[in-house]
Amino acid sequence: MQDLKVLAFDVFGTVVDWHGSIAREVDAMRLGVDAEAFATAWRAGYQPAMARVRGGALGWTKIDDLHRMILDAILAEFGLSHLDEPQRRHLNKAWHRLDPWPDAVEGLARLKRKYTICTLSNGNLGLLCNMAKRAGLPWDLILSAEVFRHYKPDPETYLGVAEVFDVSPGETMLVAAHKDDLRGAQRCGLRTSFVERPLEYGRAGNKDLSRDPAFDLHATDFNDLAGQLGC
Amino acid sequence: MQDLKVLAFDVFGTVVDWHGSIAREVDAMRLGVDAEAFATAWRAGYQPAMARVRGGALGWTKIDDLHRMILDAILAEFGLSHLDEPQRRHLNKAWHRLDPWPDAVEGLARLKRKYTICTLSNGNLGLLCNMAKRAGLPWDLILSAEVFRHYKPDPETYLGVAEVFDVSPGETMLVAAHKDDLRGAQRCGLRTSFVERPLEYGRAGNKDLSRDPAFDLHATDFNDLAGQLGC
Repeated sequence: MQDLKVLAFDVFGTVVDWHGSIAREVDAMRLGVDAEAFATAWRAGYQPAMARVRGGALGWTKIDDLHRMILDAILAEFGLSHLDEPQRRHLNKAWHRLDPWPDAVEGLARLKRKYTICTLSNGNLGLLCNMAKRAGLPWDLILSAEVFRHYKPDPETYLGVAEVFDVSPGETMLVAAHKDDLRGAQRCGLRTSFVERPLEYGRAGNKDLSRDPAFDLHATDFNDLAGQLGC
Repeated sequence: MQDLKVLAFDVFGTVVDWHGSIAREVDAMRLGVDAEAFATAWRAGYQPAMARVRGGALGWTKIDDLHRMILDAILAEFGLSHLDEPQRRHLNKAWHRLDPWPDAVEGLARLKRKYTICTLSNGNLGLLCNMAKRAGLPWDLILSAEVFRHYKPDPETYLGVAEVFDVSPGETMLVAAHKDDLRGAQRCGLRTSFVERPLEYGRAGNKDLSRDPAFDLHATDFNDLAGQLGC
């Protein structure tokens, strides 16, 4: 790891608790629905929506707009078709107000002393900026699929990080709680660190936390990662 | 100014002292040339190089690469053709190590409490990130021509800032020490603040600091701007 220079972080699930935060926002609106089921249903539309962009059925569309398309579709399923435009806009912006995992801010601050830390998220720039400002996430740079006009796991995203910083893929590490994301990075020559996030899908969620020797590091949280990297 | 939400900053000359910093780096290399003249000559190639990209003679090329093309050309003029590749690379990265004006970090920190503050620079993302990390510039978001694949004053850059944040152009202000940049922003409906930077071109430089009533604000530095905006 001696030549490691840049740590790029997946965000939804890895840095912030999307499931708990969306459920909290839905609860706060007193809509009379199962807030955890609503969060799960909303997120379930995420990969298929990006697949439509990746496949060309949709032109480049940022996550705020994909979230809104999915939201409009699931409101009917939950009997919430009566929500008006300001309510829908407020709810859609809940993705800008996700709370970090308890170790995230401290762990990032430690890692930042030794490495350049950036996001590599499918979330759009405005969303990631608002989230960081609210939560105090100390990024050196916010990078997004929006910069590369490709969604992860397209290689343009992982290779794009190395190119932005004028470093080699091997001097770059992706940190993520999702193995498919890490495998995408690995195919491009990046180093990889898996981070356990057992509550990503809520307490009822069934998260694969198993240690995979294919990845360079396996961390329980960001403080553990900082310790393993000597920060 | 009640609906103002986002302040976008030009960087070279407005936030950081490119002339003094490049001269300092050239002096430190003991090359035996007039360091201030070298800085001026290097910067003189900047607008023509971007014009070649804008006009299509060059495909999209980031500033690091444009700086290097200009550097290779002026080294001969200054009798420095003997500089080897590591020296040229080191010198080219001097643009990542520019020092902020004395008021910049404090002024930005004040403005950040009330507004979202971002860069809107023709500098590339990696350059702006390295500069901010070294100098402690507290950006909420680093935006660059590299994101929009257009150099200022192309309208895609100014309108791109508003689009990224999902705000209107009138809710966005460009802060710059260059009137042509401000006029470009104004044509797109952004608000504008001119900032005096009398030493941008060195002590011998002839900088236009006159008050132009076409711009919304005229500030002597970032602390003055913060005061005028009630921060």
